Amino acid sequence: MKISVIGGGSSYAPELAKGLLQSRLDVREVWLVDVAEGLDRAQTVAALMRRMATRAGRSTSFTVTTDRERAIAGSSFVLNQFRVGGLRMRGLDERVPLRHGVVGQETTGPGGFASAMRTIRVAREVAEQVDRLAQGAWLLNFTNPAGLITQALHMIGAERTLGLCNIPRITERRLSQAAGTEVELSVAGLNHLTGSWASANGTDITQTVLRHPDATRAFTGEIPYAEVPEGFLAQIGFIPNPYLSYFFFPGERLRTAVEQALSPEGTRADRVQRIEADLFAKYREEDRDEPPEELLLRGGAFYSEVAVDVMAALLAPSPVNLVLNIPNAGAIADLDDGDVVERNALVSRDGIRTVPLPGRLPPVLRGLVQRVKEYERLTAEAALGGSRRAAFQALLAHPLVPGASVAQKLLVDLEAANQGYWPELH
Amino acid sequence: MKISVIGGGSSYAPELAKGLLQSRLDVREVWLVDVAEGLDRAQTVAALMRRMATRAGRSTSFTVTTDRERAIAGSSFVLNQFRVGGLRMRGLDERVPLRHGVVGQETTGPGGFASAMRTIRVAREVAEQVDRLAQGAWLLNFTNPAGLITQALHMIGAERTLGLCNIPRITERRLSQAAGTEVELSVAGLNHLTGSWASANGTDITQTVLRHPDATRAFTGEIPYAEVPEGFLAQIGFIPNPYLSYFFFPGERLRTAVEQALSPEGTRADRVQRIEADLFAKYREEDRDEPPEELLLRGGAFYSEVAVDVMAALLAPSPVNLVLNIPNAGAIADLDDGDVVERNALVSRDGIRTVPLPGRLPPVLRGLVQRVKEYERLTAEAALGGSRRAAFQALLAHPLVPGASVAQKLLVDLEAANQGYWPELH
Amino acid sequence: MKISVIGGGSSYAPELAKGLLQSRLDVREVWLVDVAEGLDRAQTVAALMRRMATRAGRSTSFTVTTDRERAIAGSSFVLNQFRVGGLRMRGLDERVPLRHGVVGQETTGPGGFASAMRTIRVAREVAEQVDRLAQGAWLLNFTNPAGLITQALHMIGAERTLGLCNIPRITERRLSQAAGTEVELSVAGLNHLTGSWASANGTDITQTVLRHPDATRAFTGEIPYAEVPEGFLAQIGFIPNPYLSYFFFPGERLRTAVEQALSPEGTRADRVQRIEADLFAKYREEDRDEPPEELLLRGGAFYSEVAVDVMAALLAPSPVNLVLNIPNAGAIADLDDGDVVERNALVSRDGIRTVPLPGRLPPVLRGLVQRVKEYERLTAEAALGGSRRAAFQALLAHPLVPGASVAQKLLVDLEAANQGYWPELH
Amino acid sequence: MKISVIGGGSSYAPELAKGLLQSRLDVREVWLVDVAEGLDRAQTVAALMRRMATRAGRSTSFTVTTDRERAIAGSSFVLNQFRVGGLRMRGLDERVPLRHGVVGQETTGPGGFASAMRTIRVAREVAEQVDRLAQGAWLLNFTNPAGLITQALHMIGAERTLGLCNIPRITERRLSQAAGTEVELSVAGLNHLTGSWASANGTDITQTVLRHPDATRAFTGEIPYAEVPEGFLAQIGFIPNPYLSYFFFPGERLRTAVEQALSPEGTRADRVQRIEADLFAKYREEDRDEPPEELLLRGGAFYSEVAVDVMAALLAPSPVNLVLNIPNAGAIADLDDGDVVERNALVSRDGIRTVPLPGRLPPVLRGLVQRVKEYERLTAEAALGGSRRAAFQALLAHPLVPGASVAQKLLVDLEAANQGYWPELH
Repeated sequence: MKISVIGGGSSYAPELAKGLLQSRLDVREVWLVDVAEGLDRAQTVAALMRRMATRAGRSTSFTVTTDRERAIAGSSFVLNQFRVGGLRMRGLDERVPLRHGVVGQETTGPGGFASAMRTIRVAREVAEQVDRLAQGAWLLNFTNPAGLITQALHMIGAERTLGLCNIPRITERRLSQAAGTEVELSVAGLNHLTGSWASANGTDITQTVLRHPDATRAFTGEIPYAEVPEGFLAQIGFIPNPYLSYFFFPGERLRTAVEQALSPEGTRADRVQRIEADLFAKYREEDRDEPPEELLLRGGAFYSEVAVDVMAALLAPSPVNLVLNIPNAGAIADLDDGDVVERNALVSRDGIRTVPLPGRLPPVLRGLVQRVKEYERLTAEAALGGSRRAAFQALLAHPLVPGASVAQKLLVDLEAANQGYWPELH
Repeated sequence: MKISVIGGGSSYAPELAKGLLQSRLDVREVWLVDVAEGLDRAQTVAALMRRMATRAGRSTSFTVTTDRERAIAGSSFVLNQFRVGGLRMRGLDERVPLRHGVVGQETTGPGGFASAMRTIRVAREVAEQVDRLAQGAWLLNFTNPAGLITQALHMIGAERTLGLCNIPRITERRLSQAAGTEVELSVAGLNHLTGSWASANGTDITQTVLRHPDATRAFTGEIPYAEVPEGFLAQIGFIPNPYLSYFFFPGERLRTAVEQALSPEGTRADRVQRIEADLFAKYREEDRDEPPEELLLRGGAFYSEVAVDVMAALLAPSPVNLVLNIPNAGAIADLDDGDVVERNALVSRDGIRTVPLPGRLPPVLRGLVQRVKEYERLTAEAALGGSRRAAFQALLAHPLVPGASVAQKLLVDLEAANQGYWPELH
Repeated sequence: MKISVIGGGSSYAPELAKGLLQSRLDVREVWLVDVAEGLDRAQTVAALMRRMATRAGRSTSFTVTTDRERAIAGSSFVLNQFRVGGLRMRGLDERVPLRHGVVGQETTGPGGFASAMRTIRVAREVAEQVDRLAQGAWLLNFTNPAGLITQALHMIGAERTLGLCNIPRITERRLSQAAGTEVELSVAGLNHLTGSWASANGTDITQTVLRHPDATRAFTGEIPYAEVPEGFLAQIGFIPNPYLSYFFFPGERLRTAVEQALSPEGTRADRVQRIEADLFAKYREEDRDEPPEELLLRGGAFYSEVAVDVMAALLAPSPVNLVLNIPNAGAIADLDDGDVVERNALVSRDGIRTVPLPGRLPPVLRGLVQRVKEYERLTAEAALGGSRRAAFQALLAHPLVPGASVAQKLLVDLEAANQGYWPELH
Repeated sequence: MKISVIGGGSSYAPELAKGLLQSRLDVREVWLVDVAEGLDRAQTVAALMRRMATRAGRSTSFTVTTDRERAIAGSSFVLNQFRVGGLRMRGLDERVPLRHGVVGQETTGPGGFASAMRTIRVAREVAEQVDRLAQGAWLLNFTNPAGLITQALHMIGAERTLGLCNIPRITERRLSQAAGTEVELSVAGLNHLTGSWASANGTDITQTVLRHPDATRAFTGEIPYAEVPEGFLAQIGFIPNPYLSYFFFPGERLRTAVEQALSPEGTRADRVQRIEADLFAKYREEDRDEPPEELLLRGGAFYSEVAVDVMAALLAPSPVNLVLNIPNAGAIADLDDGDVVERNALVSRDGIRTVPLPGRLPPVLRGLVQRVKEYERLTAEAALGGSRRAAFQALLAHPLVPGASVAQKLLVDLEAANQGYWPELH
């Protein structure tokens, strides 16, 4: 079995290799694809992977290339984990919107819009190459904003595309640990915009979870506790994805983002750049044959586990329940059938079936999800067709963009900052 | 035929009388109901109406009472145009949210939330009395927020309730005048949150309208022109209800509202109080037998025309196309069947049928309307059941309320300001 | 002895009468002067005063008039306590600047600027009438901004003018009560912008006072305690006038002022209007022969005591130490000799001598006082000469006005709100 | 004659060498002192200087060292142009205050406070070494904030210290060019906080200059023209130092600073870092024997001219009129004799005498200058004695710091950012 990784020089890649080497998957070849500027990093990663394989006593080969077609050809799985423009552009995604009093946020926020506009056309190329050169292969997309990229790929007919995220897995593990027994999650919404419900041994324990003080703190993070309405989680009635805090506490999040951008340490992108420099220094250690612990700081916990589980399930005879970003197909009554949603699905070699959500989305989530899906469709349309009108409408539809005049200024500014990366808008 | 007007001391009432007296409707009795504090105003209005009837040579009787049951009993039409707490409370609706950096706006904004919380339980009483004492009567609701009140009444089964608004009629007239020919509007959305499409002689002229410079100015009103993106209306692609400017230009609207509230002239409620004092002085002129021209300043143009047209249509054998607030019944694919929408409907004595909207709502409107409908349902639930949780969720779901901490503070403040008017929340 | 009170319909006036009736001053006639609109209030006040005199067994006469010249003629003391434009204009002083993000504050703030511009030309007329019709009389000015009005009057040569304020007396009494012994204050600065030092039985107790937790709370009032730096008073090293909080906590004060203006209760002027309505209802009680306790709510504690003490001292053979607003005459090294300052002075029938301040003003006060004095001079110049340039410079020099563009907009707005009250600017 | 330059690796240094080599000063040795991290840069600069000397046919020697004592010993002039902590710390000076809504501004703003706290103790060491090792030498200080550093050095008795700035010279040249004749400036105030008056051929041309449209634009720079009150310069009546725009247009300057800090290009320090990288690349060109034109971008026009003129004047028999930062000595009536002011002075080998300013400072400048001088004294006190209380009072006294709570937070933040650079505060 051959696997190709687009964005193979990613700092996350060693984690993936670890998962593959520990799994029962019979992976013969791993191809790491990167652009010319990323080649040195990809080589570093491949060398580490080879040492890891030796340690694991496996004969998997690791090949680095800039030739995406060669890598994709004949793959069973193609993994997207590239980042167009690298951390430098992510820094601008996070910084530029702040000038207009809008949080950047590189996944669900306007920063994610800028990033999607850079990414979608590359993702389309990848999808077309997969379609042409690797029949029957699955395209697993980790590249952020993962839900929006997957939405765009399905809009152009790339049906064998799945979007993946590690947050449902992290949440499940955290709750299991706290409960002392295995907890299962029912997840529904859009990527980074989901509600979840927990059950243990067949009993719904959601209300217990929501009433636990740690749950609120886990959600609100660095938001001053005095700002959080008493019993907030119980009041909304579901376990919210941590990224929902950008929508439920926008003022606090914006203030924090501005303070961070103006602090000596800079934005998250600035910090990640320093973390990555340290990581690659470790990757280069010649006697190192496993990923360093510091990789956890980078924020990709369980990422390889999710990836390996999905690949295994897609090869297995009996269905496994996994949370994926795939077309709704009736599972969530509040969204259209073709809308890509994040939802539990039954996955096997015979295909994928979303699990229907009983009832409707909870009210404070429903309208929000509907509005953000509208934004996603418009963004995909803008990126695929280069439509300035769709781009403007996308920002106007985004719940975190306060109106048309800001949308317009933001579009102008982001376009200028992304010159050479975005499609020409007309 | 007997008509009863709940809130008969309203400054708008003489306009209604004018419409009735000019129409072919055979109205024998008009009953003006008001609360004790409004009685003097209602008497003033009734006296003017009697002089108007004399001038018109009609024998309609005008009766003033505080006994709502007596007035409603046997009515063919009951008109809601009452305002719980009067302009003083409207002033607080507009002012209090500004403390939290949120526009009040007494219809679509959080001010409308506070007002709906005061109004819905009175409206429910009225609806129950109509059901009990005036079988077969129609309840025509003008009381704002008209769409939300109508939504609440349908949620408790008051099926013969219609919500009315003069804005579609005003828009139609303005466009007809500009075009020099009769223009017809297709209207879809929620009250004060609609998109419209215009046709003249069977041809769609929407794009022409949107490209006319006056159209943009009419929409943006006092918003500084430099803030409006070029070709804004053409970019969104439909004729927006003027109240959508609160959602498309929230920063500008907030700034204006704060400036107004801090200006010598005060909020709109403060101004209206002065306008009404002048109006009633005129109503009291003993030789006056028609409404003064200044009534236009009050903002109720075409109000009586709409009321009379609806009543006439409900008595007529063949259907008339009118814009109403009624249950969707499949007309707009993006909303549930039971949701009250503002939409064209065919109205006759045989009933009311919404006209299906071809296609979907335009993208920047769709998600917004879905989210506001969620807010409306939650508000109705809070007002009907006294649920503090629903009230909090309603504000959290409102697109103009920036998040949970503001929602919470706003709820506390509005509750304090509305003591004695709101249902007890628990 | 004849005393005339300009602004005799002031709600404070009964307090003054109480002081006069209790004192040993041989006051035969009290003349209450007011404008036509204030006449009814002045009559109410005079009637109450007559009942008070009867109770006190004194034969003082109380005369109400609109004829200022008749009242002033032959007076020994003329007291200014008028308010040009009444509370309605004070409301605008407090409200209009908020539109530009500037606190109004009707004494030391830009609201006081607007008020001074209305007041100074009336005060000049009074001073000229005193000079002409009541030779040797003293003009005691309580009208706010008291320091600035006194500055202006000295700039036009009205040498026998004193500015009075009750805050030093209030502070002295509060500290004496807390210390359980008589405390004496050394006060230095400008009206409402003073530092004080306390001594008891000849020992300086300032540092003890500053370290007492109540002292900080007394100063910071409604400012959230978390915002006050630890040991704030000890850090600045003197007992600050409460109005200095507008300069030391401008952000907090502005926020509170905006919140108040947008609250149901409105600005301080709105509240005072309600308090005064209640007060005058009490004044009108026919069996009332003393001021009601509620007068304390109005904020004029010790006002009459200060007035009576000053008058008594000016008639006494040996000098009394009193805090006055008078020309510096070398007492404070950081200000010019002719600058009107608030400072202890030795007062007797032989004249007034300011007590030299040992050393210099404390650093955080010195530069502030120098800048505000500059603002005062410019304001007086603008009011006396109608100079638009001086008016603009005054606002630009004011520490609470953030720069030239705000100063300009503020000037335009205040000028519009004060039409008919300000001198024509050119 | 020996000259030593403290901070010899400064990018400005080649400009100084150019001036020295072109002048008639008989400079035999130039010593460039820098810290270990700056040594490479200093070597680069020295090499360029040697090529420049060769080209000029002069035999001046250029020595690089980290041994400040050796360099200073026997110098006739010691020039301060060091920057403690380099551009990295300047970046924090500019960035950190923005978090609290305060402009950083590395000279007159709170950024300058942070910088002075780093600099003063090094400057004191230099002054003590000059006193000990180079009797009769003059210490010329260019290090910013130049006025405040000079103030501090005079406070510890370093009498032969002069503060220098190129802005008066730049202004004089700009006006001369515009007028087509030589213009002379009378300058009064504090460094970067001066007013100027211009004369040509003995005639005062200030009003003509102020009415010229270019003058306003030159002052207001990037401030939107709509924000500048009409005839602003004529209204204030003197030629303002460009840095006064931070005080006259604080809102606009803050907005611009925040936008810059959040822009892709970053703060001025970020930009200067890129400019300097380019400059040193040019300095390293082996055939280069003069400073590159790009040095002008760095902002040091006329810097060497001012330095050379001052040195020449201090050696000349007859007095030259130059603008210096030196003790007031009665020249400006509004400041104390010992206060360091920026003012014209007559300079010769017999000493320095400030030229008395006729009259007083203009009103909008006077109070501002007095308040800033208070801030300077407090800052010097804090830096020299490590007093936390003086540091807090300094920030509280600064006109751009809005009050005590901000002052406190700012102090905490700046102290954290300057760990290892500031004296320990107690």
